[in-house]
Amino acid sequence: MALSSSLLDQAVDQLATLPGIGRRTAMRLALDLLRRERQEVVRFSEAVRKLREEVRYCSECCNISDRPVCEICANPSRERSIICVVEDIRDVIAIENTRQFKGLYHVLGGVISPMDGIGPDDLNTKELLARIGQGGVKEVVLALGATLEGDTTSFFLHRKLDALGVTVSMIARGISIGGDLDQVDEVTLGRSIADRKPYEQSVKR
Amino acid sequence: MALSSSLLDQAVDQLATLPGIGRRTAMRLALDLLRRERQEVVRFSEAVRKLREEVRYCSECCNISDRPVCEICANPSRERSIICVVEDIRDVIAIENTRQFKGLYHVLGGVISPMDGIGPDDLNTKELLARIGQGGVKEVVLALGATLEGDTTSFFLHRKLDALGVTVSMIARGISIGGDLDQVDEVTLGRSIADRKPYEQSVKR
Repeated sequence: MALSSSLLDQAVDQLATLPGIGRRTAMRLALDLLRRERQEVVRFSEAVRKLREEVRYCSECCNISDRPVCEICANPSRERSIICVVEDIRDVIAIENTRQFKGLYHVLGGVISPMDGIGPDDLNTKELLARIGQGGVKEVVLALGATLEGDTTSFFLHRKLDALGVTVSMIARGISIGGDLDQVDEVTLGRSIADRKPYEQSVKR
Repeated sequence: MALSSSLLDQAVDQLATLPGIGRRTAMRLALDLLRRERQEVVRFSEAVRKLREEVRYCSECCNISDRPVCEICANPSRERSIICVVEDIRDVIAIENTRQFKGLYHVLGGVISPMDGIGPDDLNTKELLARIGQGGVKEVVLALGATLEGDTTSFFLHRKLDALGVTVSMIARGISIGGDLDQVDEVTLGRSIADRKPYEQSVKR
């Protein structure tokens, strides 16, 4: 149904373009914004515009960063011979929170997805290959999602990186720590059986 | 965890002020906006700002409207002696979709909620009382949500409107059409038993 206000209509249309937000939720968000102070809404609108217009990226790992070289890349105590390839900044945060990785990152900015028209050239793949080309990197860890798109991207990168003579590894897939077997999907469970390890190796950490 | 970019930080903070959007979802939305064309994001940001800065309201029913008097209030075939009081434009749309109401509306713009610091003066109550004061209105239908806040608001309006000598009614509460009894909460079911009607009256519609 067309609304009685084209301004409301447009705001709802725009809010509904956000992932996971339908028109019903968009209307709720628009009415919430309408009830706020004018200055508050201007701040909201400006924060979104400025994010897109003024955001900067680390010249080494391509992560979003205020500085020309991000904190992680600039940190002299990080191991520079190992690079972990991830999709976006959320993955960097998630891996940093584990405190299990001391190397550097490379942020692709997405994964290959022909359905969405995203090919290798739309991602920071050239930058990754150029980084490896400079030498000094021994291992690249592929840490992409275990989805069709993630796997496609890993396959593509593996072929390119292999040609450069660097070791390519992939993060382990298997059952979650604390997970019951009957809760795990059969593909994951099957993979975790095929990829089984000697008991001593599995428990020593 | 603080992010590597204050721009991203601010955008996530702002997006997380939206109702039902946590920081995790806000981050997903921010990254989605970042991947879009610059012009697309400007359009998004402008639609939100303009909604708050340029929105206009119907001078009669207080609904959001591009025209000084909204389409419903300006329609000569609507019954002008009956006014349905609702919380916001969503309720107007919902009731219009039923095609069961031919009168006019009055949009409060919220409900009384002391917890959120919203009193009668923050709503369009004065405008409602002024409308009734002009005469010609025989019945006011209270169609607010069946919540504590909705009931408080209905009680407040009932007292004010009663003093003006207008008939005040309230939309029916009971079990949903198509609903099974064992799915209904006990308060609603109890109320629907207390408010039972003669069989002939219930089925004649």
